[in-house]
Amino acid sequence: MYEGMIEQLENEYPEMVAWRRHFHENPELSFQEEKTPMKIAAFLRDLGVDDVQEAFGGRGVVAKIHGDLPGKTIALRADFDALPIQDAKDVEYKSKVPGVSHACGHDAHTSILLHTAKVLYENREHLQGTIVLIHQFAEEQTPGGAKPMVEAGCLEDVDVIFGTHLWSTFPEGSIFVKSGPLMAASDRFHIHIHGKGGHGALPQETRDPIVCGSAIVQSLQQVVSRNVDPLESAVLSFGAFESGGPFNVIPDTARITGTVRTFSTDVQAIVKERMDEIVRHVGKAHGMECTLDYDDGYPALINHEKETQYVQQAASELYGEERCRDMNPMMGGEDFAYYLQQKPGVFFFTGAGHPEAYPHHHPHFDIEEKAMLQASQMFIKLIEMSNKEGSPNG
Amino acid sequence: MYEGMIEQLENEYPEMVAWRRHFHENPELSFQEEKTPMKIAAFLRDLGVDDVQEAFGGRGVVAKIHGDLPGKTIALRADFDALPIQDAKDVEYKSKVPGVSHACGHDAHTSILLHTAKVLYENREHLQGTIVLIHQFAEEQTPGGAKPMVEAGCLEDVDVIFGTHLWSTFPEGSIFVKSGPLMAASDRFHIHIHGKGGHGALPQETRDPIVCGSAIVQSLQQVVSRNVDPLESAVLSFGAFESGGPFNVIPDTARITGTVRTFSTDVQAIVKERMDEIVRHVGKAHGMECTLDYDDGYPALINHEKETQYVQQAASELYGEERCRDMNPMMGGEDFAYYLQQKPGVFFFTGAGHPEAYPHHHPHFDIEEKAMLQASQMFIKLIEMSNKEGSPNG
Amino acid sequence: MYEGMIEQLENEYPEMVAWRRHFHENPELSFQEEKTPMKIAAFLRDLGVDDVQEAFGGRGVVAKIHGDLPGKTIALRADFDALPIQDAKDVEYKSKVPGVSHACGHDAHTSILLHTAKVLYENREHLQGTIVLIHQFAEEQTPGGAKPMVEAGCLEDVDVIFGTHLWSTFPEGSIFVKSGPLMAASDRFHIHIHGKGGHGALPQETRDPIVCGSAIVQSLQQVVSRNVDPLESAVLSFGAFESGGPFNVIPDTARITGTVRTFSTDVQAIVKERMDEIVRHVGKAHGMECTLDYDDGYPALINHEKETQYVQQAASELYGEERCRDMNPMMGGEDFAYYLQQKPGVFFFTGAGHPEAYPHHHPHFDIEEKAMLQASQMFIKLIEMSNKEGSPNG
Amino acid sequence: MYEGMIEQLENEYPEMVAWRRHFHENPELSFQEEKTPMKIAAFLRDLGVDDVQEAFGGRGVVAKIHGDLPGKTIALRADFDALPIQDAKDVEYKSKVPGVSHACGHDAHTSILLHTAKVLYENREHLQGTIVLIHQFAEEQTPGGAKPMVEAGCLEDVDVIFGTHLWSTFPEGSIFVKSGPLMAASDRFHIHIHGKGGHGALPQETRDPIVCGSAIVQSLQQVVSRNVDPLESAVLSFGAFESGGPFNVIPDTARITGTVRTFSTDVQAIVKERMDEIVRHVGKAHGMECTLDYDDGYPALINHEKETQYVQQAASELYGEERCRDMNPMMGGEDFAYYLQQKPGVFFFTGAGHPEAYPHHHPHFDIEEKAMLQASQMFIKLIEMSNKEGSPNG
Repeated sequence: MYEGMIEQLENEYPEMVAWRRHFHENPELSFQEEKTPMKIAAFLRDLGVDDVQEAFGGRGVVAKIHGDLPGKTIALRADFDALPIQDAKDVEYKSKVPGVSHACGHDAHTSILLHTAKVLYENREHLQGTIVLIHQFAEEQTPGGAKPMVEAGCLEDVDVIFGTHLWSTFPEGSIFVKSGPLMAASDRFHIHIHGKGGHGALPQETRDPIVCGSAIVQSLQQVVSRNVDPLESAVLSFGAFESGGPFNVIPDTARITGTVRTFSTDVQAIVKERMDEIVRHVGKAHGMECTLDYDDGYPALINHEKETQYVQQAASELYGEERCRDMNPMMGGEDFAYYLQQKPGVFFFTGAGHPEAYPHHHPHFDIEEKAMLQASQMFIKLIEMSNKEGSPNG
Repeated sequence: MYEGMIEQLENEYPEMVAWRRHFHENPELSFQEEKTPMKIAAFLRDLGVDDVQEAFGGRGVVAKIHGDLPGKTIALRADFDALPIQDAKDVEYKSKVPGVSHACGHDAHTSILLHTAKVLYENREHLQGTIVLIHQFAEEQTPGGAKPMVEAGCLEDVDVIFGTHLWSTFPEGSIFVKSGPLMAASDRFHIHIHGKGGHGALPQETRDPIVCGSAIVQSLQQVVSRNVDPLESAVLSFGAFESGGPFNVIPDTARITGTVRTFSTDVQAIVKERMDEIVRHVGKAHGMECTLDYDDGYPALINHEKETQYVQQAASELYGEERCRDMNPMMGGEDFAYYLQQKPGVFFFTGAGHPEAYPHHHPHFDIEEKAMLQASQMFIKLIEMSNKEGSPNG
Repeated sequence: MYEGMIEQLENEYPEMVAWRRHFHENPELSFQEEKTPMKIAAFLRDLGVDDVQEAFGGRGVVAKIHGDLPGKTIALRADFDALPIQDAKDVEYKSKVPGVSHACGHDAHTSILLHTAKVLYENREHLQGTIVLIHQFAEEQTPGGAKPMVEAGCLEDVDVIFGTHLWSTFPEGSIFVKSGPLMAASDRFHIHIHGKGGHGALPQETRDPIVCGSAIVQSLQQVVSRNVDPLESAVLSFGAFESGGPFNVIPDTARITGTVRTFSTDVQAIVKERMDEIVRHVGKAHGMECTLDYDDGYPALINHEKETQYVQQAASELYGEERCRDMNPMMGGEDFAYYLQQKPGVFFFTGAGHPEAYPHHHPHFDIEEKAMLQASQMFIKLIEMSNKEGSPNG
Repeated sequence: MYEGMIEQLENEYPEMVAWRRHFHENPELSFQEEKTPMKIAAFLRDLGVDDVQEAFGGRGVVAKIHGDLPGKTIALRADFDALPIQDAKDVEYKSKVPGVSHACGHDAHTSILLHTAKVLYENREHLQGTIVLIHQFAEEQTPGGAKPMVEAGCLEDVDVIFGTHLWSTFPEGSIFVKSGPLMAASDRFHIHIHGKGGHGALPQETRDPIVCGSAIVQSLQQVVSRNVDPLESAVLSFGAFESGGPFNVIPDTARITGTVRTFSTDVQAIVKERMDEIVRHVGKAHGMECTLDYDDGYPALINHEKETQYVQQAASELYGEERCRDMNPMMGGEDFAYYLQQKPGVFFFTGAGHPEAYPHHHPHFDIEEKAMLQASQMFIKLIEMSNKEGSPNG
């Protein structure tokens, strides 16, 4: 029965492309999405889906398709926000909004989920359980839309959740996944160094914030080199060191900004604790007050093992074993992580280009649209597998 | 005979004040002086001095008064430029030029030298030798006026040179001097760090300029702490550390700016050499190119011992021994240093206020005008002493 | 047929224990093994094995058992050296050699391989292919025995190689393995800092090796924190910083010693290159010569994927799936790595104790002897699997 | 009258040499002097001096010569201890004690004072006031003999004190002195770093004392470069950095030892305070306890101005102005500093060799004995000048 749905998706492909291009032409920034969720809700209602909730957790849309057969409650998620990047492509479906574009493929994610929903809804007599469609706003910008949608209850009664990201530099036709940590927690920090300025010729009357800041930068190297388990990953990078004015005046303050990436909350906690310890005490060693402002970004995205095996098995069955590929973790963040903190599930990448393609967030970014078909097929297959007795390790 | 001149100066005092106030109301910035040198030259020509050269070495005025008696050729110097500081005083003679003021007392220096010249010229039949009047432009801003005036020959045939600075936070009525290093060489440097930026999550693909710059700042501490003779003085201070942009992007470059102060060319040379060595090699240790731009400012001002004793003796005789005071070196610069590199001489400070007075370069800066009288009396006395047989140690 | 051998091993167990204890009582240090290889060779010859080569690559013993059936050439390796550690156990079979003991279980490895050989030889009519028995000397001490034995040709014609380590803190009855990097490359380095000493009160006449060494230690932190891919593992640790004499004399030199651990030769190469760059240039920044002596230890041990799956399958079949366990990489070194650089194969751990047991190299170290039976059964099973058509992925 | 004494000293010269050589042959270490003070006391009693106190403040000898004329109470000090250095000279009067020698000239100091005393005593009818002879033990080793002798009252009723040091690398025949700070305070410190050791491959389980110690060494550079007034002198040098054992084990602790030299108690206090702040807080930044043990050595020796002028005038009158030389401060310590904290006075250097001579504390060290005559003549002259009405500035 699911096989029929997978085949039917091919018929939907032209419309899937059309809708993707429609969203592509009309991008909306994170936390400013208005028409996009309206169109999503309308699309679903037009299908006949009656359980459609708008303004979910803010600007999200959550809809449910109830199969006629008993089965699990399975959530599928697609994000729909765009980026503050000018579209530089020369294509018919180029963004119509100056300075805003779908340079990350969320337009395609949305169209994929809508057309997957269409096929599921039309085949609901053969469908097991309930499918929860999560159309999420604001993935590109912390604090993101996933968290408030989870808090508003989008995962209620959900047994398992799936999501995918089309990826322009992964070859079209293949599926990429790995169990465990897949995407990093991405945090931001500011270090404030409160020295005491004065004449450059009279250092003894000052507390030099540049010398102190430099010692902090040096000492922070040991967080990764000494305090984190070498078998774990962590990055602590500086984006800015700002201090000063005239060449002959020791400044009052310095400010250091940067980012921390980790895959484990234990490691993140160690990094935070050690950073705080170092910043405060190196400050005191220089006779001044230094403080750390640490803003947690999205947590690390940790794929669940069994569901990762579903993806591997699904991709192997659909496209052959060689098209199911292992991947390395990525250091970027993704708020799908919040769903996986609550429920079993997996986030996988659908190849949508080739290694030399323009990368995500590039003004010339585009995707190989065929990938949309594969992503939606994978969703159907994953529903099938989740409902199967004796699924891997099960 | 010189005693008569010293007494006569008291009669000139009201006119000295009037001229100082005239200059005070009409300040001109360094390297932009036009009317001031014209008025100086006119004043001297009006006296009857015929050997007056304008546009000397740029914008300077050099005049000579030939005494009827044989004697030494003695130079007296006064600087005449003003500062880009808004005059905030509420006095009748407040600056008429918005944003420009004589906030360092060069107006008074000029009037002192003009009226000293007047008395010397009127008494030229009793005057020994030749007096060279050096009215210098652009002391406040490197490269200064002293160097081009020396290069243009203002010290030709000069045996000895004297200069003074009125000082608002030294008590009026006293003279301050010390032999040897009096004012520091004041240099400026820029360190350019050419790293390779990239994504904050991928440090291994970058050359991090903030980490490198911090190591340079740390390593440069040893220049003063390890490489300079502890019995010598040196300061190496940073005014700015500038690097960066977004928190999650490792920047391409960093730039560190600062100042070096020294009293000895040997120490200055060691500091320069070690800085260059450290900057280049710490850069290479971080896999990047770092360069040092080092701009020499004015050299250290080194008073000559015998002439310093003249000042001490002159002040003691004029005002009593307790009014001749030792002073510590100052870390600021003064281009009188160039004259003292060529000829014997001394630069001394004439107290012109009190410890709580507004400091030099302050918008409310002013002087106790009585100090002008003392400064001009000192000049006459120093001419007398320089021509004496058996002057100290002589 | 192999099933019979696996069962037969149980009958050998008492003798396996006796021989293990015999070796335990008579340990010989790395590169000083004399009686141990003689006894090994005698044991094999006593069985009837005629292809026994002694003094192989130094002190090794290599023997071949030719099965009557066609099949692959499969090497099994056991190391036989002991450690310079006083045996502190109170057991009958305690080491008789003062200061030397089998505190790492190589006695058991040897007995395992000898009795596996016995069963294989006695069943040679059912045996496929050729079994190469590699009894290796000097695993505990670089440069180790594996390298010269490989160079002397022990792997000639070998298709696949297996080795195991009994592990006292892993629970007896389970097998532990992981594909890919399993044990770290473990290198040693010395940094020589050639400063110029002198009186502590005259730093300007010296080149201070303690300040330079400290800057090197600080700068080396960035090798791990900045230069190594955060998804890779590397450790750079210092074991000693030695410099100095009297409190008031700046010393001439300093010496810093430490270790580097990596799992990839690319990462190892980056660490080496950056260390060299940092040591030399930070030295020059301090006006002195600093050099790095870097001694490669054993390379990282990288398990081959297919053979790892053999182990997983073998353990599952023999003891149940839950007794086949994943493990994290270990930061210690093992010269089995050299065999795996030449031939497909795998190194696995055989649980031989419990988490609270005395760790390896501890004076009270001992093993649960039952583990010997499991290790030898695994060897037989791996021979069977390697010769099977349609083995995993094969 | 004093002139006669000065002339008479020349007659004493041969005996002065003989006694110096006697002491030279029989050196005694600091705090172990037994025969030397006995001989000194005997010499003085043999002269007829009756006010001789032995075991003064420990091992010192204090004697008083009362002049028949009224006058000031003037102390003269000579130290008499030797050094733990093997005498390597090939001379008749070579040290007879293995491993001990007068490699600093205290033998000569003693003979100078004894023969000065002889002349003064023999001329006591012309002598003004009282002369206090201070023969001091243990100058070479802190806490020194000066402090307990002062505490025992050797300066009671003293008006002024004089001391000299023969100096082998200053030309014989000249006297060297300077007003104000002449010899540095020389302190010793130990920094204890209490980390937590562990396996070099598991840095995250340790607190690395070598990395922490290196950060402390780096941060301490700023004490001199940033916290001390650049017009003041301070040195902070390390003599030893000791940490470690096997190359692959992170050690538990590190220990850093060094010396601080200053000329002002204010600067010394700043250095101490900042060191403590840095050591403690850099320790905490590394998650460990670090402590500073700081042992004050002798304080800075500060010559009094008027008495310095006495020395200058005395030397000029005796040997000509060109033989009275200015000198730079020395970074070494001298416990004569304690006397000058209590009473007016001066410590001067008597040239006793030439710039290429073996320096003090060298196994080949020796002095030009003629310098003894000059030192004793200076003492007589200084007594004369101290008693004069209208002495310099007086």
